[in-house]
Amino acid sequence: MRILILGGDGYLGWPTAMYLSRRGHEVGVVDNFAKRRWEKELNIMPLVPIPPLEERVRIWQQVTGLPIHAVTADLCDYPQTKEILRDFRPDAIVHYGEQPSAPFSMMDQHRSVFTQTNNITGTLNLLWAMREHAPRCHLVKLGTMGEYGTPNIDIEEGFIEIEHNGRRDVLPFPKQPGSFYHLSKVHDSHNILFACRVWNLRSTDLNQGVVYGIETDETALHPELVTSFHYDEVFGTALNRFCVQAVAGVPLTVYGQGRQKRGFLNIRDTLRCVELALLNPPGIGEYRVFNQFTEIFSVLELAELVKRQGEKLGLSVKLQHLKNPRVEAETHYYNARHQKLLELGLEPHRLSDVLIDSMLARIQENAQRIRPEIILPRVQWDHASSHPSSQAAAREGKGKQRRSVLEESVKAAKI
Amino acid sequence: MRILILGGDGYLGWPTAMYLSRRGHEVGVVDNFAKRRWEKELNIMPLVPIPPLEERVRIWQQVTGLPIHAVTADLCDYPQTKEILRDFRPDAIVHYGEQPSAPFSMMDQHRSVFTQTNNITGTLNLLWAMREHAPRCHLVKLGTMGEYGTPNIDIEEGFIEIEHNGRRDVLPFPKQPGSFYHLSKVHDSHNILFACRVWNLRSTDLNQGVVYGIETDETALHPELVTSFHYDEVFGTALNRFCVQAVAGVPLTVYGQGRQKRGFLNIRDTLRCVELALLNPPGIGEYRVFNQFTEIFSVLELAELVKRQGEKLGLSVKLQHLKNPRVEAETHYYNARHQKLLELGLEPHRLSDVLIDSMLARIQENAQRIRPEIILPRVQWDHASSHPSSQAAAREGKGKQRRSVLEESVKAAKI
Repeated sequence: MRILILGGDGYLGWPTAMYLSRRGHEVGVVDNFAKRRWEKELNIMPLVPIPPLEERVRIWQQVTGLPIHAVTADLCDYPQTKEILRDFRPDAIVHYGEQPSAPFSMMDQHRSVFTQTNNITGTLNLLWAMREHAPRCHLVKLGTMGEYGTPNIDIEEGFIEIEHNGRRDVLPFPKQPGSFYHLSKVHDSHNILFACRVWNLRSTDLNQGVVYGIETDETALHPELVTSFHYDEVFGTALNRFCVQAVAGVPLTVYGQGRQKRGFLNIRDTLRCVELALLNPPGIGEYRVFNQFTEIFSVLELAELVKRQGEKLGLSVKLQHLKNPRVEAETHYYNARHQKLLELGLEPHRLSDVLIDSMLARIQENAQRIRPEIILPRVQWDHASSHPSSQAAAREGKGKQRRSVLEESVKAAKI
Repeated sequence: MRILILGGDGYLGWPTAMYLSRRGHEVGVVDNFAKRRWEKELNIMPLVPIPPLEERVRIWQQVTGLPIHAVTADLCDYPQTKEILRDFRPDAIVHYGEQPSAPFSMMDQHRSVFTQTNNITGTLNLLWAMREHAPRCHLVKLGTMGEYGTPNIDIEEGFIEIEHNGRRDVLPFPKQPGSFYHLSKVHDSHNILFACRVWNLRSTDLNQGVVYGIETDETALHPELVTSFHYDEVFGTALNRFCVQAVAGVPLTVYGQGRQKRGFLNIRDTLRCVELALLNPPGIGEYRVFNQFTEIFSVLELAELVKRQGEKLGLSVKLQHLKNPRVEAETHYYNARHQKLLELGLEPHRLSDVLIDSMLARIQENAQRIRPEIILPRVQWDHASSHPSSQAAAREGKGKQRRSVLEESVKAAKI
């Protein structure tokens, strides 16, 4: 199969590219390296420095003899997007190419608007380009379980049969996302469903849980094939952050009481889920949703698990409950269906003790690289921007904005 | 009350401004005149030429002695948006300031992306500016009944109680919008709901039906106070278009069988609904939805009504069924609740014979201005762009896009 991976330089994009390449597919990766710029901007970095994509592609070819084609492009540039589809002629596209962080989207006005316009424009451009150059191509889109929020009923996979006043219909599951980032994924889902219906495109929307893990079979082949493991407040996910905190000897930071429940999955299962979606494509004009996670935990359960395992390794691990920077229900019902990928053959890696040992061990090898100061949450959902880089941006912007508004007032009638 | 009308130069914005001004409110109008530019671009125009906003404001003051404050600004410019809120200190904002046409949003890639980024960015900027400068201000946002699509169950006002596997919750009503424009309104609704929840803003989302009518008590005060009545395929609504076709002596163009049912309301009721929302604001942190229409008709019923009334006036009126340019269900269940505005005191104008007479009469006065060639649909939902202005744009863009992709390929690794 000819498969394009969008966002192929990222935490999941790069391991997906190697995984699919090793299984005999013709793989192309596309990235605009925006995340590497944001890392610099926010003064954060992954645990292990990541070689340039070009370099990883070269090593991959050296180690496995398999080519991965890399292109630098921005999905927000429509002519580029069209040209890539026309030239590569993909049978399938795996779309990770979006701004992936909830805290980033909540930092300030600029980043919130950027997150939504960037993510929506990229996906819309892709849909228009598919319509023109690859109408039978299967779009595998990475969404998030966070699109659903935490309703007081069971969460179904994308659609729910509703009986109301004696009539029935199967309708999109109502969405209650918790950040401008999560909202952007909801917007994408609505746009993709519409494009499938009106243009007969086909797509699988993977509503993914929180991914953890640092290693896959392919990253293990060579030290330079590593993926970008983030543990900071902006790009790091809860379990990855807890493991790093345990190794660094700082308290595990639990937001609020930690009773928030979420779906989790191992990075190895992400790759297998994407593969299962690719091998079992939807019909022409079909839009389907798979809930992609394997286990549900509360944040506190995760922290306690890491504490127990850390202590077995001789680490001294404490928990610290922080005032929750997010506005979210902390005590809530949570039961989300996740049958469809299991039915296609997914055999989940469980968050077993062994697994935590191996994550902790891999992090310990890099313990000297940990920068504890980037872990604590500074982005507040309901406060004025408190992230230092936002304040700096605001100060810097103020001069500019005052000038432009003054110029405008001259032209405009006085209010 | 200090009330800002965004999109105050438009079909509904301008009559709303006059209506509220006359009722003793301090009214400011904001517009970037984008729609006047699109009219030129697409070579279409309203039935009666519309004087510049400045001129209408001057005449309004002359006729009534009441000031309306006008500002030229683009909501996509965040510093401008903030400055307006800071200076005007509105108690309420009525937000019509978006790209309002479904066919426009379906014309081509550029206009589809523009519609979504323009509408979403404007509303997000407004929410951020309200958070900073007007956190208690009431945002009255114009949405559309088209957000819901045509589900096989009764449509509720924004939220629905769902019982599922023995549990219950009240959740956002599932949305199935029918164009990139309608999708943009769905995205707005999700964003506003979130901002109310997280930032304690307050908003009324008016899911409005199809508006018809050419005259209000205030436009009738002076010929130059007229509002922009469109009958073309891009900005014209179904009933307005039918009335113009009847007067012009061309067949009424019914899309498909015409069994599509929609909610309709008189432009005078739009003004009253907005007023009722303003006079009965939601609580702090509350997001509520009113379905704003008064009667449900099928498109064919509308056409037949116009035919009957036209014939009474001595017009020869024929119906013509065109292949439906839209992808939509033509035979479907449709029952949408619209109680909340009635409970607040709305007394609907019915689409009575008299009303059609008066619309037809006003159009007859301007019969010589009608340009029948701009009525027929050229934008196809499921075809390659067929609107002449899109084809021209595509031809023009092609040279540019080829260059930029070539330049890019030099920089990029080869795919």
